Amino acid sequence: MSHPAVLVMIYGAARGSSLGGRPAFRIVAEPGKRLRVTDLAATRGDGVFETVGVFDGRPANLGPHLERLARSAAMIDLPDLDLGVLEQAFDTAVTAHLPVPELLVKIVVSRGIEGSGTPSAWIHAQTAPSYAAERAGLKVVALDRGISTTAPQTSPWLLAGAKTLSYATNMAALREAQRRGAQEVLFVSSDGFALEGPTSTLLVRRGEQFSTTPASAGVLPGTSLASVASHLRGSGREVVEELLTPAQVAEADGAWLLSSVRLACPITHLDDQELPVDRALSEELSQAISGRAAR
Amino acid sequence: MSHPAVLVMIYGAARGSSLGGRPAFRIVAEPGKRLRVTDLAATRGDGVFETVGVFDGRPANLGPHLERLARSAAMIDLPDLDLGVLEQAFDTAVTAHLPVPELLVKIVVSRGIEGSGTPSAWIHAQTAPSYAAERAGLKVVALDRGISTTAPQTSPWLLAGAKTLSYATNMAALREAQRRGAQEVLFVSSDGFALEGPTSTLLVRRGEQFSTTPASAGVLPGTSLASVASHLRGSGREVVEELLTPAQVAEADGAWLLSSVRLACPITHLDDQELPVDRALSEELSQAISGRAAR
Repeated sequence: MSHPAVLVMIYGAARGSSLGGRPAFRIVAEPGKRLRVTDLAATRGDGVFETVGVFDGRPANLGPHLERLARSAAMIDLPDLDLGVLEQAFDTAVTAHLPVPELLVKIVVSRGIEGSGTPSAWIHAQTAPSYAAERAGLKVVALDRGISTTAPQTSPWLLAGAKTLSYATNMAALREAQRRGAQEVLFVSSDGFALEGPTSTLLVRRGEQFSTTPASAGVLPGTSLASVASHLRGSGREVVEELLTPAQVAEADGAWLLSSVRLACPITHLDDQELPVDRALSEELSQAISGRAAR
Repeated sequence: MSHPAVLVMIYGAARGSSLGGRPAFRIVAEPGKRLRVTDLAATRGDGVFETVGVFDGRPANLGPHLERLARSAAMIDLPDLDLGVLEQAFDTAVTAHLPVPELLVKIVVSRGIEGSGTPSAWIHAQTAPSYAAERAGLKVVALDRGISTTAPQTSPWLLAGAKTLSYATNMAALREAQRRGAQEVLFVSSDGFALEGPTSTLLVRRGEQFSTTPASAGVLPGTSLASVASHLRGSGREVVEELLTPAQVAEADGAWLLSSVRLACPITHLDDQELPVDRALSEELSQAISGRAAR
């Protein structure tokens, strides 16, 4: 069953915004045309975003998502964000959407119309598509990202670790995976280490130890990973940050791509190599992200 | 004097578009809101573009720009573009704009609204800002682009050589240049070679030989460069493609960043090193791009 999406336009995304009598945000009719072609989101991919899962009406990790949005915004020199306004706008969008088990909510802040100096911002809430197939398992190909694990520290303008709107190469990598008969990508650094997916974080299990890619290697600090790591540590399991090669991932006792709406998707194959899948553990990890029993 | 911009929305950008009775393109009121927030231009920087200069009403290198747009579109798996429709729409936009000496015209084609499978496309014509300062000379800083000159051949999903809308790192590099008291950037590959600017092509003069970066190194094949190379060769001067280090550029007898609207801008400084500036030659190169006497 498909319900209409909800769109909230935000006029007060920057702290101390001059609103000129407008409210800080308001629900607008969807679908409608709300952006100018000179918005830097559309001409330069010049903005930041978050995708948040809402499960049975409860947002998962909204605080960490908003904090990461603020960090991404700072990395591209956007004005300071008013996270209070963004959170209220988020709640308004979720409340206005008809109740569904899984809602996919995007928060976008762009640099705004060229020359204006005022960010554009909106929240778009829509019924999540079914991720049953992905949650059962993903065929993944390892693809070079072309950048070393050391470049992010010395070259901050490469924006590694900022979640910007410039995702053309991420999307191209996903199409390359499909051409190879797979559904997903594991990016590999030019110095040969497994990094992350185009829209997901890598988690690997080797024996009783879980590991993930250090954020310093130029990956996005995963909000879902934080939930999963906290859950695993809380139940006595060890979680470490370490650089692994794709070969080490392929030989592991289990691996997942974690994301906020798709949750914990086990990797069934990395290139031609098959990995063991622990269905119960995958559901446990998904539940740690969503905060509810897996479906 | 500022004249209103002209916006042409294009409904028939893809060959064999189903127009449902609409014209292939039409002029629409500017400023107006013409894009949905779910357009992949705005959410993923997932599209391609060209910026074309129009000088005294005559477009410079429109054919090569349209051909490069088509190549960029193919590199990101967009539908085949109908360049005839795009050219007509371009002419319509230029004709509709009040006559000015220099017009800056953007052609944008995005993957369209998420899930629609139909590209969004538009042409936006506006009076060019004054580039007198840039044409007199640019202070440039060399910044790492993090990718080697060999990665583009083996990893086409990195989209080197495609002019996509995902320019967040290009814009971040320009802001870094400003922080360092410069106006422009010369990107450097991870293996240490001078590449191109964020929105421009590098041309270097050493003695009587001119050189530029090979396209195979992952730079955008410059439309302005093609005009300049043709002009230089036509007047008996040698133009070669070769990889130079930033140190070699800094020691050269002259260097320029070439682009379609800003034209040939001499580099006065690369980091702390001053370069000789040949004003007459810069004007000659600008004229080769614009097709008219420099101002």
